[in-house]
Amino acid sequence: MRFMTTSDKPENATGGESAADDTAEVTGIAAQDWDRASADPQYRAAVVDLLGALAYGELAAFERLAEDAKLAPTLVDKAELAKMAAAEFHHFERLAGRLTEIGEEPTRAMEPFVDALDGFHKQTAPSDWLEGLVKAYVGDSIASDFYREVAAHLDSDTRGLVLAVLDDTGHAGFAVEKVRAAIDEDPRVGGRLALWARRLMGEALSQSQRVVADRDALSTMLVGGVADGFDLAEVGRMFSRITEAHTKRMAALGLAA
Amino acid sequence: MRFMTTSDKPENATGGESAADDTAEVTGIAAQDWDRASADPQYRAAVVDLLGALAYGELAAFERLAEDAKLAPTLVDKAELAKMAAAEFHHFERLAGRLTEIGEEPTRAMEPFVDALDGFHKQTAPSDWLEGLVKAYVGDSIASDFYREVAAHLDSDTRGLVLAVLDDTGHAGFAVEKVRAAIDEDPRVGGRLALWARRLMGEALSQSQRVVADRDALSTMLVGGVADGFDLAEVGRMFSRITEAHTKRMAALGLAA
Repeated sequence: MRFMTTSDKPENATGGESAADDTAEVTGIAAQDWDRASADPQYRAAVVDLLGALAYGELAAFERLAEDAKLAPTLVDKAELAKMAAAEFHHFERLAGRLTEIGEEPTRAMEPFVDALDGFHKQTAPSDWLEGLVKAYVGDSIASDFYREVAAHLDSDTRGLVLAVLDDTGHAGFAVEKVRAAIDEDPRVGGRLALWARRLMGEALSQSQRVVADRDALSTMLVGGVADGFDLAEVGRMFSRITEAHTKRMAALGLAA
Repeated sequence: MRFMTTSDKPENATGGESAADDTAEVTGIAAQDWDRASADPQYRAAVVDLLGALAYGELAAFERLAEDAKLAPTLVDKAELAKMAAAEFHHFERLAGRLTEIGEEPTRAMEPFVDALDGFHKQTAPSDWLEGLVKAYVGDSIASDFYREVAAHLDSDTRGLVLAVLDDTGHAGFAVEKVRAAIDEDPRVGGRLALWARRLMGEALSQSQRVVADRDALSTMLVGGVADGFDLAEVGRMFSRITEAHTKRMAALGLAA
């Protein structure tokens, strides 16, 4: 099976076992709803993995933001972070709800991703408020880019849910504003935070590799090929796009990536 | 001014400056809406204090529950605590929204209570999951009893809001179930948690006294008298009722209070 990869080449997106007879304009899995797409057990397993990873990511984000709220310099900042944490929790609820709806135990779906995500958070505990903001901003943005790329490979029902929970929780604007103000006030802060952002990116990549190595169904879906083996060129391009977007965001923040 | 004290004696609840001419069946402040009651600057100040204390209490409860979620032994428990934390955050939002609505800065209203609440949480950091559950249960129950008592003294609009945010977030049932199961499994746990609950009650009382000593308008409203000085007998009875309810809850939990 081959899933639709990027939006600029839908005409190449069919093929493989289950989607071979589908020749509509939007083709492949992306043209199917969940009921049809999930008939393929490998696709089903990949989506359960994806929803489980995303759900635990939201739960971990909730915890991280709530933790960062304690570092907030003012009550207004604290309340702002608590608000974002609550929004992440509601995303978690939707994802867990969806897993239940399709007959999967949310806890079991999340469990394979606990170590990688906890490992990431443990290796990158922010030492102050600004590091926390940069981490939340970098982490959310990379995760969001990644899931948006993946969403193009998904059946219409799952795609709708994934895009809905990626809806901006307002974090980006808040973090950018605070970090830029801090750099304006003391430019040396920029150097320290740039190093920090590089460390975050490195740690995120290393934990992602760990997940990809462990979870066959998920990684197979990510790289868009099953029968033919991994389409490594495509996954390489995806990582390039994500890294470029990261570099641009860091520049906008006043940080050299 | 004298506010309505307890529901068993509404006939004594009038008197004082602003409510003296009100002879309806429910009398005093409790018979008034916010627009009328808040014409008295001392009543207004007391309500701002009360909403500020309650708002910061919810924000602190959010943080505490999110923190406890990290101690959760299973993902299901973690998600359950995160859910309660999000519920507390939404209560905070309602209270902060109400403060804004009546023209008060939520941050300024909360600030006088930050030290006492942070002090309480700092002095009573749970060392494990069960201590966290007992703390959340004891703390929520006492706060809830206290605000319900106070609600009887409030104008109808403020009373409605206070009672709404005291709505059970599901914490009590969850905590009771988990704690009882742990005691059943190892009765020695009961002794340790009983000591812990006593320490919590002591610390809560000592921080409350600190607040009462600091905030004139609030404490004046609490004890139900202004012109005549404090009605200490009534406040004593209120504390007795709260302590008795606490003792009963501890017994139900299998702990000697």
